[in-house]
Amino acid sequence: MHCRDKKGIIASVTNFIHQQNGNIVYIDQYVDRNLGVFFMRVVVEGAFDDSKYTQLKAAFIASLGKTFQLNCSFYLEEKLPKMAVFVSKYDHCLYDILSQQRSGKLTCTIPFICSNHPDLQFIAEQFNIPFFHIPVSKENKAAAEQKQLEILKQFETDCIVLARYMQIITSKIIDAYRHKIINIHHSFLPAFPGAKPYHSAFDRGVKIIGTTSHYVTEELDAGPIIEQDVIRVSHEHEVKDFIAKGQDLERVVLLRALKLHCERKIMVYGNKTVVFN
Amino acid sequence: MHCRDKKGIIASVTNFIHQQNGNIVYIDQYVDRNLGVFFMRVVVEGAFDDSKYTQLKAAFIASLGKTFQLNCSFYLEEKLPKMAVFVSKYDHCLYDILSQQRSGKLTCTIPFICSNHPDLQFIAEQFNIPFFHIPVSKENKAAAEQKQLEILKQFETDCIVLARYMQIITSKIIDAYRHKIINIHHSFLPAFPGAKPYHSAFDRGVKIIGTTSHYVTEELDAGPIIEQDVIRVSHEHEVKDFIAKGQDLERVVLLRALKLHCERKIMVYGNKTVVFN
Amino acid sequence: MHCRDKKGIIASVTNFIHQQNGNIVYIDQYVDRNLGVFFMRVVVEGAFDDSKYTQLKAAFIASLGKTFQLNCSFYLEEKLPKMAVFVSKYDHCLYDILSQQRSGKLTCTIPFICSNHPDLQFIAEQFNIPFFHIPVSKENKAAAEQKQLEILKQFETDCIVLARYMQIITSKIIDAYRHKIINIHHSFLPAFPGAKPYHSAFDRGVKIIGTTSHYVTEELDAGPIIEQDVIRVSHEHEVKDFIAKGQDLERVVLLRALKLHCERKIMVYGNKTVVFN
Amino acid sequence: MHCRDKKGIIASVTNFIHQQNGNIVYIDQYVDRNLGVFFMRVVVEGAFDDSKYTQLKAAFIASLGKTFQLNCSFYLEEKLPKMAVFVSKYDHCLYDILSQQRSGKLTCTIPFICSNHPDLQFIAEQFNIPFFHIPVSKENKAAAEQKQLEILKQFETDCIVLARYMQIITSKIIDAYRHKIINIHHSFLPAFPGAKPYHSAFDRGVKIIGTTSHYVTEELDAGPIIEQDVIRVSHEHEVKDFIAKGQDLERVVLLRALKLHCERKIMVYGNKTVVFN
Repeated sequence: MHCRDKKGIIASVTNFIHQQNGNIVYIDQYVDRNLGVFFMRVVVEGAFDDSKYTQLKAAFIASLGKTFQLNCSFYLEEKLPKMAVFVSKYDHCLYDILSQQRSGKLTCTIPFICSNHPDLQFIAEQFNIPFFHIPVSKENKAAAEQKQLEILKQFETDCIVLARYMQIITSKIIDAYRHKIINIHHSFLPAFPGAKPYHSAFDRGVKIIGTTSHYVTEELDAGPIIEQDVIRVSHEHEVKDFIAKGQDLERVVLLRALKLHCERKIMVYGNKTVVFN
Repeated sequence: MHCRDKKGIIASVTNFIHQQNGNIVYIDQYVDRNLGVFFMRVVVEGAFDDSKYTQLKAAFIASLGKTFQLNCSFYLEEKLPKMAVFVSKYDHCLYDILSQQRSGKLTCTIPFICSNHPDLQFIAEQFNIPFFHIPVSKENKAAAEQKQLEILKQFETDCIVLARYMQIITSKIIDAYRHKIINIHHSFLPAFPGAKPYHSAFDRGVKIIGTTSHYVTEELDAGPIIEQDVIRVSHEHEVKDFIAKGQDLERVVLLRALKLHCERKIMVYGNKTVVFN
Repeated sequence: MHCRDKKGIIASVTNFIHQQNGNIVYIDQYVDRNLGVFFMRVVVEGAFDDSKYTQLKAAFIASLGKTFQLNCSFYLEEKLPKMAVFVSKYDHCLYDILSQQRSGKLTCTIPFICSNHPDLQFIAEQFNIPFFHIPVSKENKAAAEQKQLEILKQFETDCIVLARYMQIITSKIIDAYRHKIINIHHSFLPAFPGAKPYHSAFDRGVKIIGTTSHYVTEELDAGPIIEQDVIRVSHEHEVKDFIAKGQDLERVVLLRALKLHCERKIMVYGNKTVVFN
Repeated sequence: MHCRDKKGIIASVTNFIHQQNGNIVYIDQYVDRNLGVFFMRVVVEGAFDDSKYTQLKAAFIASLGKTFQLNCSFYLEEKLPKMAVFVSKYDHCLYDILSQQRSGKLTCTIPFICSNHPDLQFIAEQFNIPFFHIPVSKENKAAAEQKQLEILKQFETDCIVLARYMQIITSKIIDAYRHKIINIHHSFLPAFPGAKPYHSAFDRGVKIIGTTSHYVTEELDAGPIIEQDVIRVSHEHEVKDFIAKGQDLERVVLLRALKLHCERKIMVYGNKTVVFN
């Protein structure tokens, strides 16, 4: 939940849960003092059946939701998000997503994989996941996105991961999945946005390269950052070494971001993320 | 504060502060589920004069303190802790402590420096701080510690930093400064406790070395860990390189620990620290 | 190559290659001054057919090999090592090894997977790799290792990775694969050797956990370290969080070690590794 | 030394040293394959008096220098560089430079400190180093730099460190100290060049901040990078926390760069550095 910061929010919310015999197993809050906004994430355990759950949500919204003008989201831990995977030709992030999901470490289901190239279909088959090959060109872009939207809808998809999907997504899809499309950019943003960041990093002679996972917005590579990490390089490394080291980092950073998203630990506000971890 | 975990603590505490017109500017809590212990750190702003502050503390202890059997400590932000510095011959940590304190980044006062060697007296003079040279040998250990205790008392010292002080402290001083003596050990504890850890790390062929700041307890190098950090080494580095890299890390890690302690962000429970940062 | 350090080795070796019209594309050397040992790794490009290659090796050994009493190994880049994978029930390292090998980033072939449990057979099938289920108990240990050795021999295996294989390997196999068995230990060795290191790290209250890849020797968890890395933890993390974070690190560190080994960038000397990277 | 890459350079150079009874205690080389440039750093021990040293240098230049068209520099380890320190009002880097130099860990002499403000004069006095207060304004910039140049010359200064000196240096001084002026920029360049980088990083919502030490060139914050490092931040940190964490990193990164420079381990080529470490 988030709202304008006021005295007494924490007390009111914890009181409410306490009175409903809920047990708070996790609570964390944060106040952005520049913006005067209060954020809180609460995990509650309780013997709630479906109707009790619906009733509690309604009661919460009607009372505290109104008093504090809360923006709040409710999730049931056992209801896993459905995450579509968009790829092009790179396989390293795809393999990681599928194997971590299979291991039970990435708590989502994967309804389908979509690609503008047929190259990785064999991996989808290895893991028994539907694969859609939708070629994308300048000319057919709108039609391709329309088709993607239909498949997303058909599978009741909750969110999308661009696992090194080498196409720009337009507002057609972004609008439908606001703050629900997660990209991995192979640079330490905002340094080296756009294409070929490893080449740019090499040319600039940096001593550390990085990678950034962020939510996709209309402005390219400028959406809210979820997670970043870096690795050292030296004059001894060529562009191909930057790429090899970077790709290892891409899969680690993307997976961390996906886990945070699937476990509902991220709130977006303005162009930033509050990550309760 | 910490106590046995129960429902309603957060609500009760935030309610209390709310009712007293206090403004919570920071709140963080943590539950150790294995031990069933609840920890919380709260920073409150308010227009309290001295008598109101004393009255509030008493009221808090009498009501919530009793209800929840709280162990709680109260600090006024403007009352800086008095931290004595014990050194031997290494100057890198001492220089860092003094310059960071002078810069206003280490929020304490430094009543005096104490050493078993006269070598660093000139630095104490550079910074205009009283210096006591108390030689320590097997024979005079008890007397030396007695003298140290007298000086500590005379200066109303709150805590002690062993800034590469190459002597073992006995329970005589530890008892008087339980969880208030901060040491920097030049290894990634519990690897390589005791003397010459850089040599041991070199012999073992590790690829990363570290350093550890901890509270001093009777068992050598086994007290509650406050902060650790590491740095990469390779086969190309000799023991002298390990030492050079390690000493750079020692000053960074020790300063981080001292800042946390002086800003009252650390709680000790069992043989561990809860660090609200 | 390695040998006792003497003047003129580099000059002699580079002269030799120069005279044979070889082009040095990589050269790195290191002198262990404590031991007085010289190490060098050289990568040479040249238009050598098989007979010329054999002749050059012989000439090198006969001349410089003799003069400097060199211990040297020769590898053809295009001849990939055959690496067997031993697993138990954990799948995270196995998935990583197979997918990185398939992506062409781990330059080896994988002749077979061997496990004391049948649980991961389906992954072997996903990747079309022979799987041998060889149960291991106190009673059948010697027989099981005998069977493993036969399979290793049958597939002309060059090296073995213990990808969280929860069994101790005896000298029977170690002797046959000296410095060719790579293990991943889930602690920052030499801290917390043996079983349950994440639990021990949690109990000690460390602020950083790590993982270590090393060559297997007779002494448990004490072989030459290849690669290590660490990740921060805090009081907020429980043992299960240590395990989750640690497992992410295990696959990263193990893969780095395997890549170094498969690219022949590691030399073992005494109980240490020289890693030319 | 550096030159166009050719076969036989290493052999020729090591032969030359070998023949002169020099003992190579360190050798490292690197080939930039894109540019076709060869770089090498060699440390030689030998019983050379002054005239022998001069004679050797001349012989080397006349023979190999000519053959390979080498660009080479010679340094005597015992002749420490003279490094002037320019500061404004921030004291954290200055304290670190002076204390590390006093500890013998920064191998240079410090002939004087120069500032556009009088605030840090007391630190210069603490360490007994001449202090020059040269105010700089838009109007007097040229005159101020003229005065700085005179003092630099008077003290036979070899290099300059801008230890958070908040003024732009013009080509007047840059020309005289090409690749000898070391700056610390408080961002992970090329992200957030110019002023107020911590504010920009905060606004962008990055999860990691960094700092960069580089040689000063005419283009602002775009000179060859020597060293960088980073530290994690989160949504919980405000701009003041970014600054506090960043300043701790600034002193660490600047000191590393200064040590590399003073130990003559850096070569500049194009707009990059080759760091032999």
